Amino acid sequence: MNFVELLGFTAGVFSMSMFVPQIYKTLKAKSAKDVSIQVFILSAVSNSLWTAYGIISIKPAIIVTNVVIFILAIIQIILKVKYDRADKLSGN
Amino acid sequence: MNFVELLGFTAGVFSMSMFVPQIYKTLKAKSAKDVSIQVFILSAVSNSLWTAYGIISIKPAIIVTNVVIFILAIIQIILKVKYDRADKLSGN
Repeated sequence: MNFVELLGFTAGVFSMSMFVPQIYKTLKAKSAKDVSIQVFILSAVSNSLWTAYGIISIKPAIIVTNVVIFILAIIQIILKVKYDRADKLSGN
Repeated sequence: MNFVELLGFTAGVFSMSMFVPQIYKTLKAKSAKDVSIQVFILSAVSNSLWTAYGIISIKPAIIVTNVVIFILAIIQIILKVKYDRADKLSGN
């Protein structure tokens, strides 16, 4: 692996780990009221486009990063929908 | 601009716009209690690395996207710190 791809994978690890604290915080609080769902929908769309960009440009760091973040964004969307529904049912 | 860079800039617009709804929601609610600050710190770090990656790979879409998101992440961090401090002072 050359220096540029190593740099890309390092950047990718930080990008991927960005989504983990929010998922953890949501799971712990069992609430995501202040969390904007649009962020994660926009993320899923942009990750799909960046994955296409990475495939065409043959940039493995971009492909791997965006596929992983796409999955994490979908998890956060599911949690947001789940907890917002629970909040509504409990009257909060 | 070739097709790949156009795709990159389109992906970039979605990536950049990801950060706008959360900033808007934070400003409107004047609260960011459920928002994880780590996300935006990790974003700022990853954006710096991706910017370096974009410069070395000569990928304008990557450079522009990450410079803009870096600035948005810093704005969100400032808002989080400001509103969390206000919440503490008001006893929430």
